Amino acid sequence: MRITKEKAEENRLALVKAAGKLFRERGIDGVGVAEISKEAGLTHGALYAHFPSKEALAAEAFGHNADRAGVHREKVMVDGKPDFNAFLDFYLSTEQRDNPAHSCAMAASASEIGRQDVSISARYEASFQRMTAFFERHIAETKPAAEARAEALAISAALIGGVSAARAVAKSNPALSDEILRSTRQVIAQLTK
Amino acid sequence: MRITKEKAEENRLALVKAAGKLFRERGIDGVGVAEISKEAGLTHGALYAHFPSKEALAAEAFGHNADRAGVHREKVMVDGKPDFNAFLDFYLSTEQRDNPAHSCAMAASASEIGRQDVSISARYEASFQRMTAFFERHIAETKPAAEARAEALAISAALIGGVSAARAVAKSNPALSDEILRSTRQVIAQLTK
Repeated sequence: MRITKEKAEENRLALVKAAGKLFRERGIDGVGVAEISKEAGLTHGALYAHFPSKEALAAEAFGHNADRAGVHREKVMVDGKPDFNAFLDFYLSTEQRDNPAHSCAMAASASEIGRQDVSISARYEASFQRMTAFFERHIAETKPAAEARAEALAISAALIGGVSAARAVAKSNPALSDEILRSTRQVIAQLTK
Repeated sequence: MRITKEKAEENRLALVKAAGKLFRERGIDGVGVAEISKEAGLTHGALYAHFPSKEALAAEAFGHNADRAGVHREKVMVDGKPDFNAFLDFYLSTEQRDNPAHSCAMAASASEIGRQDVSISARYEASFQRMTAFFERHIAETKPAAEARAEALAISAALIGGVSAARAVAKSNPALSDEILRSTRQVIAQLTK
């Protein structure tokens, strides 16, 4: 039985979404193709009909998450411009910390990407560049270009590390976890004011 | 055949070192007890004679790495005080980025710890607190305590995120990877000057 083109597209998207959720929740190495197929309500065979490997699916899932995050980030406006502060508040919120499955894939997978292949590195890079450019445009309104670029890169690093560290200490010391998020937010505000 | 107490201690340390190296290189979920035993030159059974589980060994390995890193950080002195700048230079160096197996476990495992149990979270927390206190003492020499604390936490976040992100983009864009390290270093220098 052949499936329609629409149904094939729907299955492909279901696989990408399931993979994105499970990878962020449990890590790229922590999830197998069998679990991803099951989460998407499809068979193992259906997965391989769309993606040659788990890595290919991981790269696609990463790109999908990044595109959605980028669109969301750039759509919240204030005074006719994307809202820099609202995005930082969201990124360093306890809500984003506590929901890795629906959060930024760059933070959820931070330390794992270096071990993956170049196709996944390329998707991470695209996502990182887009977030950094968002900060850079905002900062460059009031500071020289080189300074804006350096600050934007350091802010991206601090966000990814802040969320990762806040998650890492959360089970052992919830108050410290909150303090990491709050302090990172506060220092970025000082830096960019 | 019973082994001596000294030999047992030696085996235990070999397991802790092997685990620390492999976890940083390949992730906690990416390495099994069989590989760790082999790397340590011991049997599977010898590992379980020392550690009830892979998690227990991971917690011990994390603590061991953190203790060594802390001692190293606090021993390099300048003007009779620990050298804040030398440590930042080292942490954000291309050398540390390119050698995860011998680098800071907090950066090498950043996004994985949140998925592990509370014993591993507690070791991460101890390591994070120690590094942050190191920054805090330095900054508090010239700034109010609350500000020093917030900046120290944000710096810890930026270091962990900076190294993770630099590793994540390294295969796809080595120049961007270097720029992340350099910019993070530069912005921390501005912030704490």
